[in-house]
Amino acid sequence: MFQKLVYPTGVWYIVLMMTDAIKKKVAARLRRIEGQIAGVRRMIDEDRYCVDVLTQTSAVVAALRGVEDLVMQNHLNTCVADAIRSNDQAEQNEKISEVMSVIGKFRKHG
Amino acid sequence: MFQKLVYPTGVWYIVLMMTDAIKKKVAARLRRIEGQIAGVRRMIDEDRYCVDVLTQTSAVVAALRGVEDLVMQNHLNTCVADAIRSNDQAEQNEKISEVMSVIGKFRKHG
Amino acid sequence: MFQKLVYPTGVWYIVLMMTDAIKKKVAARLRRIEGQIAGVRRMIDEDRYCVDVLTQTSAVVAALRGVEDLVMQNHLNTCVADAIRSNDQAEQNEKISEVMSVIGKFRKHG
Amino acid sequence: MFQKLVYPTGVWYIVLMMTDAIKKKVAARLRRIEGQIAGVRRMIDEDRYCVDVLTQTSAVVAALRGVEDLVMQNHLNTCVADAIRSNDQAEQNEKISEVMSVIGKFRKHG
Repeated sequence: MFQKLVYPTGVWYIVLMMTDAIKKKVAARLRRIEGQIAGVRRMIDEDRYCVDVLTQTSAVVAALRGVEDLVMQNHLNTCVADAIRSNDQAEQNEKISEVMSVIGKFRKHG
Repeated sequence: MFQKLVYPTGVWYIVLMMTDAIKKKVAARLRRIEGQIAGVRRMIDEDRYCVDVLTQTSAVVAALRGVEDLVMQNHLNTCVADAIRSNDQAEQNEKISEVMSVIGKFRKHG
Repeated sequence: MFQKLVYPTGVWYIVLMMTDAIKKKVAARLRRIEGQIAGVRRMIDEDRYCVDVLTQTSAVVAALRGVEDLVMQNHLNTCVADAIRSNDQAEQNEKISEVMSVIGKFRKHG
Repeated sequence: MFQKLVYPTGVWYIVLMMTDAIKKKVAARLRRIEGQIAGVRRMIDEDRYCVDVLTQTSAVVAALRGVEDLVMQNHLNTCVADAIRSNDQAEQNEKISEVMSVIGKFRKHG
């Protein structure tokens, strides 16, 4: 996604929200997570020990958290940074509230 | 998985670790979660807004937590309950330590 | 707290819910946590760096989690174990539902 | 704490890290949390039911999370925003890495 932003100096910037490198990295991790979940499904099918199943689901959650960290870090470095640089206080407040709400979601399903 | 256990009364019980009903339920949920993750992958591909991506990954984590709760509740009702009923204190301690360690894993990737 | 329980064998047991040793350990940890929070209050007062404050609050949460683990492990070993040994299925279900609800609370404020 | 920052325009700003209003709010909440923990200590002393103790410790963790959110939001609005506005990429990277590391701590003790 592209987004235009006016900087205090009056120069227009074109900001790419997620570089192709990060997108590839995130997509590859998500594909691996799909495989992990298919693996958990097989464990259930094979009546594997509950604690081993839960150890595996914990690993999946950890992998998802890793993806979330990549996306969040990218978000702070692009959208949030742009909102702050725009010197539009309402825009900055909105972006930071959004980040706080995402942190709240991380916790709610902690 | 089947597991034989001696009860204090000396009677042998056959305990099914996870009923077919629970296994089906868990497998269906896991299949849906795989679909959700494929959906997140598409969102990345389509350059969707980071916060929307993170809202969706939070929903996936919540769904995984739901699966973990089903598996944990089943584990308490079967393996842990059997260990306690066996009146073998070492066995009970081991099972409860295992449960505490799983709770620790839930937290670590909270 | 004392609780009387009938075992399948018909023998009455007296079960102490939390031994004095565990109670002392938990109380000592809680007193230390109070001190840690007073320390965070001083950090705020002295305008300490936000990230250092958050590192300290994380340590407090970790300490509280340690207390919760002690209490939970004790609960599994006493109340839950007694409910299971009582062979009263309704009682067992209730206790295990309670444990699942506590795990849910751990997560909600994860 | 005061912190001087050069903006791209070359103007010097004086930035107060946490306003007195926020500091008072945070301090008041922390004092209340100390009271809550003293309350948990009394519950232990009075042999209250483990599940009630754990419900109360969960409330304490939730209250601590509320304090963390206040501090984090303030941190994003001051230090992180200033680092971004400074147009010093190394400074921005460092601040955002710090925020990610704090989010990691939130999760680790989730």
